[in-house]
Amino acid sequence: MTPWQSRFSPYASRVTPSAIFELTTMPRAPDTINLGPGEPDASMFPVGALTKVLSQTLQTSSVAQRALQYTVNAGYPQLRQKICDYMRTKGVACSVENILVTNGAQQALDLLTELFVRPSTKVVVQAPTYPGALGVFKADGAEVVSIDQHKKSPRDDIALIYATANFHNPTGTSLSLEERRELIALAHMSSTVLVEDDPYETISLDGTPSHSMLSLELHERSIEDAHTIYVSTFSKSAAPGLRVGWVVAPAVIIERLTLLKQSEDLQAGTLAQVAVAGAMDFIMQEHVPRLRDAYRARRDTMLSALIENFGNDVQWTQPAGGFFIWLSLPPEINTSVLLSRAALEGVTYVPGSAFSHDGSFSNALRLSYSSVGTPLISEGVRRLAAVVRGAE
Amino acid sequence: MTPWQSRFSPYASRVTPSAIFELTTMPRAPDTINLGPGEPDASMFPVGALTKVLSQTLQTSSVAQRALQYTVNAGYPQLRQKICDYMRTKGVACSVENILVTNGAQQALDLLTELFVRPSTKVVVQAPTYPGALGVFKADGAEVVSIDQHKKSPRDDIALIYATANFHNPTGTSLSLEERRELIALAHMSSTVLVEDDPYETISLDGTPSHSMLSLELHERSIEDAHTIYVSTFSKSAAPGLRVGWVVAPAVIIERLTLLKQSEDLQAGTLAQVAVAGAMDFIMQEHVPRLRDAYRARRDTMLSALIENFGNDVQWTQPAGGFFIWLSLPPEINTSVLLSRAALEGVTYVPGSAFSHDGSFSNALRLSYSSVGTPLISEGVRRLAAVVRGAE
Repeated sequence: MTPWQSRFSPYASRVTPSAIFELTTMPRAPDTINLGPGEPDASMFPVGALTKVLSQTLQTSSVAQRALQYTVNAGYPQLRQKICDYMRTKGVACSVENILVTNGAQQALDLLTELFVRPSTKVVVQAPTYPGALGVFKADGAEVVSIDQHKKSPRDDIALIYATANFHNPTGTSLSLEERRELIALAHMSSTVLVEDDPYETISLDGTPSHSMLSLELHERSIEDAHTIYVSTFSKSAAPGLRVGWVVAPAVIIERLTLLKQSEDLQAGTLAQVAVAGAMDFIMQEHVPRLRDAYRARRDTMLSALIENFGNDVQWTQPAGGFFIWLSLPPEINTSVLLSRAALEGVTYVPGSAFSHDGSFSNALRLSYSSVGTPLISEGVRRLAAVVRGAE
Repeated sequence: MTPWQSRFSPYASRVTPSAIFELTTMPRAPDTINLGPGEPDASMFPVGALTKVLSQTLQTSSVAQRALQYTVNAGYPQLRQKICDYMRTKGVACSVENILVTNGAQQALDLLTELFVRPSTKVVVQAPTYPGALGVFKADGAEVVSIDQHKKSPRDDIALIYATANFHNPTGTSLSLEERRELIALAHMSSTVLVEDDPYETISLDGTPSHSMLSLELHERSIEDAHTIYVSTFSKSAAPGLRVGWVVAPAVIIERLTLLKQSEDLQAGTLAQVAVAGAMDFIMQEHVPRLRDAYRARRDTMLSALIENFGNDVQWTQPAGGFFIWLSLPPEINTSVLLSRAALEGVTYVPGSAFSHDGSFSNALRLSYSSVGTPLISEGVRRLAAVVRGAE
């Protein structure tokens, strides 16, 4: 066999498998309860609304033809307009020139990294943070540092700041107003961008709508002068298999991102964009409230089960939204090592180090309540507590 | 406004707008006949078959859930299997581990470039060639040379060879067996890959099925030892708005490409992949023969109109398939300059230099017969001939 590895580019050689995807190959008990994956619950997808839109789209020949043909690189015009209108309801005064439709939020992060990061420049992140973003930053050769590390030894060559303000993955917590202001100020001081990843913005569980850092920044200046670049997705509010996400940014940045998108894959799928545009009012107004009710019940079940099963030596977060709870076990427990035992005992999670740029959080783990019904959540937490007790 | 341009990475700064997309903003006569764009004819999309598959998919809840959820990064398993089976009918003995599903062929070219090309390495291309590939190679910093230029001063540091053997864009011509063998031999001699872009493989118009360079190479060795990497798409046989294409390569290459794909956007859209998998038998067995009949009639109309309207000082290719005819006008005519007059006279084309890595072919142009009906093809060619006569 040809030794192709030696021909791979430095970029390609830096791309590593996601720790979360590696989970799927681990030996486990047959009835294992997976509290690892952060997938939305497929049984709650808005199938009826999507079916209606797709069948209406395909039954009129001129509409069907448009939905299956190439469209504008930046996104299907009606969807860009819908996203723009939605962002306005969220306090973001923007126009369609500020919107790019991407293949989910992941592609938005990848394009923004390609736009701003060059090898050996610095990317500042929350610790812990989303592994899919860490992977992209590292593949592009960035030096990744946490906000705390940056504060200890500030440097000028920051290429990009990456943060989630609402219902953060993996902790489920949100940033305070003060923390948000600090990040925006840091972006301005460093003459760089704050990439705000907001995939869980619709999954607010305690009755208070989420606010973006971008909307906060727009109290002070116009979208064209903002340093916050907003990224979100329909993967949580509708369905991830559609692969539709978006970016909101100054027009000059959207213009260049659109060129990168054109070069990479021309455009997001037209049919999926048409489906989302047609179903979007229903999704945001009727579907999302139902999702909130369902995920709220699951979160509450998981929090109760944690109280019931764990002692004082284990701490966890109290998420006001999103899909996740973050547990900190006693420092001597390595959750990566513990995972293979947990899987054999019938429960999985994601070890904390997967969310770290430097291997920290070895005693932490992420639990997801998004894709498992309430009875299994309780049983999963019970099993986990037994495994943890066995390790203490 | 923040001067963001100064913060853009070298890669992002090298990405330039496609010349073909720039065409769309040019002033033109109101009844202009567009012989420029290479889009498939939307009126021939397999809307019925896709509607049937999508409605069947969405009406069974477990199937709908799978079609809207995340799927395997390398592609929806049934689609990978279908593509694998299809490639076997085309003389390519492969298994699913040799298949990656991408967002159209464009993303396949982008991922392969990221995998093999680093700045200042050499990419060898046909001249003229597909602008979307040239754009990707240049964005990644490659030095692009033609096969002829390479032959004149061979060098060792070839990162990638890029070629279309069947019904080439923009010329419509196919490579001889000898030329195909030469390219495969060059890939082996240079210890590099021959990326075979075969988007028009189904649009064979003269009754002889197309053969790939990959199938030719597999006479000599197994897929795991092949240096030809095959890229194709459902954009011409089904519909481009689905954004479904694929790569066939040694498993070790597919594995690394899949990591790149995961990092960039996780996966191609699940629903679109399910639709293609379900409609694929119909598309290949029933739909493609109808497309061939329709495109054959258009090609013949265009060739007749060329004979009727142009004199001996203009040459053109005789495509046996695909969407395009390539015209060479007298050397003193600059088709980029001529285009603005042609547009005002009611006909557009793509100037030859758009297909060149070094600005050659200034007297050539590409005509497409794919998206315009036969009466308009004749009238468009008549208008073009009048404009050319005016320039002589």
